[in-house]
Amino acid sequence: MNYPSGIKKDTVNLRTYSNRGMDLEADINDTNEYYLYNDIAVIHKKPTPITINKVDYKSRHDAVIKEAHFITPSTTDYNGIYKGRYIDFEAKETKSTTSFPLKNIHKHQIEHLKKIFNHGGIGFIIVRFTKLNKTYLLFIEDLLCFLECQKRASIPVSYFEEKGYIIKEGLNPRIDYLKIIDKKGVVL
Amino acid sequence: MNYPSGIKKDTVNLRTYSNRGMDLEADINDTNEYYLYNDIAVIHKKPTPITINKVDYKSRHDAVIKEAHFITPSTTDYNGIYKGRYIDFEAKETKSTTSFPLKNIHKHQIEHLKKIFNHGGIGFIIVRFTKLNKTYLLFIEDLLCFLECQKRASIPVSYFEEKGYIIKEGLNPRIDYLKIIDKKGVVL
Repeated sequence: MNYPSGIKKDTVNLRTYSNRGMDLEADINDTNEYYLYNDIAVIHKKPTPITINKVDYKSRHDAVIKEAHFITPSTTDYNGIYKGRYIDFEAKETKSTTSFPLKNIHKHQIEHLKKIFNHGGIGFIIVRFTKLNKTYLLFIEDLLCFLECQKRASIPVSYFEEKGYIIKEGLNPRIDYLKIIDKKGVVL
Repeated sequence: MNYPSGIKKDTVNLRTYSNRGMDLEADINDTNEYYLYNDIAVIHKKPTPITINKVDYKSRHDAVIKEAHFITPSTTDYNGIYKGRYIDFEAKETKSTTSFPLKNIHKHQIEHLKKIFNHGGIGFIIVRFTKLNKTYLLFIEDLLCFLECQKRASIPVSYFEEKGYIIKEGLNPRIDYLKIIDKKGVVL
């Protein structure tokens, strides 16, 4: 089975080189743990979607997956609840210093976030420009606005500056992205 | 690595014998597709959580997982949004005709549902008594009430009759569990 193009590398890196280029994910996971521990929000990363072909039952309590394949995720990586509101987002890093390539996000992930927005949830993407050392939150409504008005294959940093919100890095929590949700006044 | 006791069989069955004893999951997935297609709600099943140990990169577009292990899920299987409200639940089948064994649900899954409730979400379990041909929805607050008041290791069918809601089976959607949410008046 061919792995859907465009995502294999990321997904595999995520698991095999956990500290190499996946700092954003580590930061988000740490932040979510902080939110959970302090009873601020309940937000989890979803497991990597795979299909399992072969399972070896060594013993009653030990099953080893011997063959499986990565599959295209049908939703985003993170969701949960904050102040009674449904939260849903995708997080991506880019090495570009000028723009975020839209091919980094699947079309059905954007469609998913659009549905979340239409059903009253809070959807967004978190994008880190690693070489600029800047992390932005962009709400789905502003992402959709860009997609409707522009024919570009990438979102320039200037659009994140204009419509997005910069997330300051801290010690604990590492990236307090829920502060942006409060700032925008979308929760009670 | 030993697979955590109590869940191996279910998880493996789920993948390898998709139509054998996993009717409830199939019914819920079909129902969720119906909700999604008709723009009623956005509720998805999370992927099975695993850790990946070995990946074989056959070619640029083809990665095969050669060794992975099941891990205990830290949350429930299903979550999403309905009428602006965060929805979260776990679904289980039992062959028992008298009670639902509590060992079928992990303690941290109950803790997770409790947190969801405390943060303003709607949490519940769906339990199917396969030999009785009955499927119930029990809200987390009623499950917690049972756990606080009783020292029993299983929830008798009578408790589901009294505090739970029976979900009638239909053709499309197969099990319209969101109707119970409407009935209880927990959404706007």
